[in-house]
This record gives sequence, C-alpha cells and structure tokens, in this order.
Amino acid sequence: MSAIVNRRILLTARPKHLPDGDSLQLSEGRAPSPQPGQFLIKHLYIALSPSARLRMAGDSDYGPGMPVGEVVQGQTLGVVMRSRNDQFHEGDIVITNGGWQEYSLSSGKTAVKVDAPGVSPLDALGLLGTSGLTAFVGLTKFGKPVQGATLLVSAASGSVGSVAGQIGKILGCRVIGITGGQDKCRYLVDELHFDQAVDYRSPDFAASLASACAPGVDIYFENVGGAILDAALPLMADFGRVVLCGMVATYNQGQGIPGPSWLPILTKRLTVAGFLLRDHQSAMQEFRTQATRWIAEGQLKMNYDLSEGIAEAPAAFARLLQGDKFGKSIVKVADV
Amino acid sequence: MSAIVNRRILLTARPKHLPDGDSLQLSEGRAPSPQPGQFLIKHLYIALSPSARLRMAGDSDYGPGMPVGEVVQGQTLGVVMRSRNDQFHEGDIVITNGGWQEYSLSSGKTAVKVDAPGVSPLDALGLLGTSGLTAFVGLTKFGKPVQGATLLVSAASGSVGSVAGQIGKILGCRVIGITGGQDKCRYLVDELHFDQAVDYRSPDFAASLASACAPGVDIYFENVGGAILDAALPLMADFGRVVLCGMVATYNQGQGIPGPSWLPILTKRLTVAGFLLRDHQSAMQEFRTQATRWIAEGQLKMNYDLSEGIAEAPAAFARLLQGDKFGKSIVKVADV
Repeated sequence: MSAIVNRRILLTARPKHLPDGDSLQLSEGRAPSPQPGQFLIKHLYIALSPSARLRMAGDSDYGPGMPVGEVVQGQTLGVVMRSRNDQFHEGDIVITNGGWQEYSLSSGKTAVKVDAPGVSPLDALGLLGTSGLTAFVGLTKFGKPVQGATLLVSAASGSVGSVAGQIGKILGCRVIGITGGQDKCRYLVDELHFDQAVDYRSPDFAASLASACAPGVDIYFENVGGAILDAALPLMADFGRVVLCGMVATYNQGQGIPGPSWLPILTKRLTVAGFLLRDHQSAMQEFRTQATRWIAEGQLKMNYDLSEGIAEAPAAFARLLQGDKFGKSIVKVADV
Repeated sequence: MSAIVNRRILLTARPKHLPDGDSLQLSEGRAPSPQPGQFLIKHLYIALSPSARLRMAGDSDYGPGMPVGEVVQGQTLGVVMRSRNDQFHEGDIVITNGGWQEYSLSSGKTAVKVDAPGVSPLDALGLLGTSGLTAFVGLTKFGKPVQGATLLVSAASGSVGSVAGQIGKILGCRVIGITGGQDKCRYLVDELHFDQAVDYRSPDFAASLASACAPGVDIYFENVGGAILDAALPLMADFGRVVLCGMVATYNQGQGIPGPSWLPILTKRLTVAGFLLRDHQSAMQEFRTQATRWIAEGQLKMNYDLSEGIAEAPAAFARLLQGDKFGKSIVKVADV
C-alpha cells in the first residue's frame, strides 16, 4: 500500500493574542503504520474547544501546555483503517484525542467506540462529547435545578450553553438565553424552545435582560464573564446559584480583569461555584445514558458550526474564540 | 416614684457618609411606665453593629430602615426595674432590642433572660450575641472546617472575625488572621492563639499574606471586601470555600465597586457563599450551648471596645465604621 499523505496543523509558536499564521501552520507528513497493539484511524470530524487556546499558551488549569512544533491536540471521531489491536477492528467508529490532523495512531487506551443507537456520528462527537457533559454536570450537580426555577444561560447558542438550556427545559425550568444577534435569538426560542432570548448586541440589552429575568434568576449558568456577568449578577434572586463554567470573554486577556461587585452575593445569599470538567469525567456514563434517551425523544439537539477540510481548522478556531460562530465548532476532514 | 430621665440617641436624618451630628443627636426624655404585660429595663450595655449603618440609610438587606426621629435601634443588656409581666421579674438580666437609650419597655416577646452560668454580662451580650452567632454559622455551616484545613480570616480582631478564628482553632484548623497594626497582630497570636497574623497596613502586605497562606487557603472567612478580598482570592487552594460574611469596607460607598477577577473561582473550582444572619437565627441555641462550654474551658473569648455613657455612642459607632477599634463595640450606660 502506498504511503498516505497526512495533512495536519502544527503549533509553531505560543500565541499571544488570537492564534494566527505565526502560531498555527498547515504541514504535510505521512500517516504512520500501526505497531503491535496499535491501530490507524482516519479522522472524519475534529471538535474544536475554546480551552485549547489556554493550553496553546502553556500549562493551564485545563491541562498541560501543548508542545510547540507538534500537532495541535483535540478530540476526533474517525474510522479504524488498519488494526493490530484485538479490541478495535477495521470499520469501527471511535472517538479519541487524535489531534488536528487527517490520521492518527491509537493504542486504544483513551479511545471509545461509538455505539449509541440512533445517534449520528456528529452528535456522538459533539452532543455526547465534552461540551454536553460539561453542561450536564454544571447544571445538574451545581445548579440544582427544580421545577419552576428560572435559569439564565450565557453564550446560550454555544455548544455548552445550548445543552444547559435544553436540559433546563427538560427538568421544568423557565429558561432565558443570552446570545448575540437576532438569528441566534430566534434559534433559541423557535428551535430549542427556550422561553426567552436576549441579544447582548442590542442597545437596550441591560433593560431587556432585567425585564426577561424578573422577578429574579435562581440559576445562572455562566460561560462568558466580563460585561455579561456584570449585567447578570445583580438580577439574581435570593438564594440563587451561579454556576461558573467558563469565562471565554477573558481567555484572550490577562488575569487582572475586575469582576462585578460582590455585594449581591452577600445581600442575596448567593452561592457561586466554579468547576472544571476534568474533575467530573466519571459522570460520562450517566450523561450518555440520559442524553441518548433525550436525543431519541427529540428533546435534545445541537447545532454545528461545520467547516470542511483540515486547512480550515485555524480559521474556525479564530471564529470560535471571537464568538462569531453558531453551535459546536466541528471540522469535517473526510467522508466515511 | 419621681420621673426617671431617659437619655437617648435619635436618628435625626439619614446619613450620607459617616454618621455625624446632623444624623445622630442626644436627646432627653422620661422613662415610660410599664402597661399590663410590659416591664421597664434599665440598660447596662448597648452593642453596636456595623449593619446599623445600612439600616440608618433606609430599608436594607439587614432589615427595614430605622425611622427618622426615633431612637436608634440596637441590642441591649439590662436589668428589669419594674414589671407587670408574669414571666419577667425585677432583677432579671435580659437581652433585648432596647435601642440606643438608658431605659426601654419590653413586652417580653423578643427579650431573652441571661442564664449562662460562668458567663459575664458583657460576654452574654457580645460573645454569645449576634457577632458570635454570625461567626459560628458562617464557619461551621458554610466554611465546613476539617482538621488541618487552612483558615484565613479578615477583620480578624473584630467581633465576628476573632470568634471565627478561635472556633477554627478549636476545630483543628491552621488559622491566619488579617488585621491592622502590630498590636492587633500580637493580640491574635499571643492571646487568641492564631497561628499567624498579617498586618494589612504593612508595605509588604501582599507578599506577607502570600507567604503566610502558602500552599493555599481552604476556607476564607471574609468580613471586609475591597483591596483585602482582591489580595486574598488568588491565594485560595483548589476546591476552597469563601464564606462572605460582610463587606464593611464598602458600606460607606455605593453599589458599584468592582470585585476581583473571577478566574480563580473557575480554575481553582472555588465555592463562594454569601449569608445573612437573619436566615440562621434558629442556630442560636446550638451556638450558645457550644460556646458556653468553650468559654468555660478558656478556649473562647472576646475583646471589647468599651465606651462609657450613652453620649459616647455616636463616636464609638464612627470608630467602628472606620475600623479604628479593637474588638466588639459596646457602650456601657450604667452600673448594676
């Protein structure tokens, strides 16, 4: 069999601001041959995650820094091409941390076979992946939703926020989403059945948010930080819970951005809880069981920001960091 | 019996900044006579509380606004002079909300008889009062102290902070206090047996605090807000708990003072919980039982900033709001 060309994106320098052509470069190599115990995977989809930005810069709370000069790390869904491993066979569909490239080798240790009936490969990587699990853990373990509670979600059309809001609806909450632009607002209400959506780009954002949230927010699922957190915190109800899942508005900035006044935390007796998914991987089975049922019942879905071709990954990643995308960012690198 | 002169402090205007002669004025009246079911109390001590500042300004989260033109509200310890109530008898020592005056009437509904053996009247009002209960509830219900945990307390020589730190020691924590000045630092270490004390007025405060708190703070009991919170939050350990008990540094300012960046809450998976004592009055009996034993064992004590005479109450209150006092602020208005 002739050598297979493997196109890949290398981290060539640690980005200072938005990653660009200095830090992310397309390169061509050859797909490696599996050694005993290994198998070769042809990637179909690569999932992009904002936390990769932190790990490109060096060691971070989301994991160790990615090595400069090597392939950018990331979750992939692919098909097994050639196998010298007893557990994985040619044609198996697997999710693994294959990186931003067209092919990867695996020893099977961190690979998971996709076997959710009625779930598409895209949903297996996206909706049933880390974004969905993050939403599930944050909302159910920290938000403690109850029937009739008011749930506010920021970055609500994003991969985590959209799942948090839909699970909130399934569990009986009144759900309000914050997103950017009228198209995304309509999507939240018309497609995902949120009760209300508020456009943070609108000139009367603060007043609209206050009106939508009255008489108060019981659970605030926060993905953004910055000005949106400043606007939302004073709208909490007594004994409300703020689930701090991400602060993507601040990842391209330093550590020193002030937050809102803490007075509402005191006077409204709020609880603010930060969490990282890496402490909660053990909830994956519970999440997949529940979410597979919700998907089958048509109660849970995900929108994808789909790019075509490995060469498009850096541009898609830049859109993700700038909030200029709609749903979970996925790069399609091959057909089955 | 001739009429008894009752000197009292009236709230004559809502204070804008530090209360002064425009808002607090001494006035003389006559002590009222008890009607059936009532009794007359001669006050011995009046306890001053910073939350009174908020209630002087109007309705607040610490309770309804105090009426302008009437006696300033506050906890008192006194002796029953004349009684037309079957439950309370001449000579009984009682704690009630008698206000900033020399005499008050009570119907007994909110009066509590002092009957803790081995506890002085001053400790019955101060240490066993709302300050001590606040420290007990905040530390035990929200801080969740365990043997060997590192506990950081701000305003540590104050009435709440000093009790929080001492209870932390009793429960096996390593306790670090933040206070102002070397005298108070020595008091925390020498008299209250804190492990370390850090002077926030010292030019190397930030470095000293970081060194004292290494490798990280498991429980931060916060009474102050502002610059001290900014310095402490980045020193938290993973999974640490911030108990937000007060923000006295901000009570004389508006609502809009920014807080620290929330990134440490996310990356260290912190929990920040605000609480108000009014939700936890039911813990009073548990606290009094425990604290009476700790006092008898010599493990728990309180320092008092004692003023003499009702006319001194406004000046003592101003010192309290400016942090220029040492221990629980009490005005002694009469001998037994």
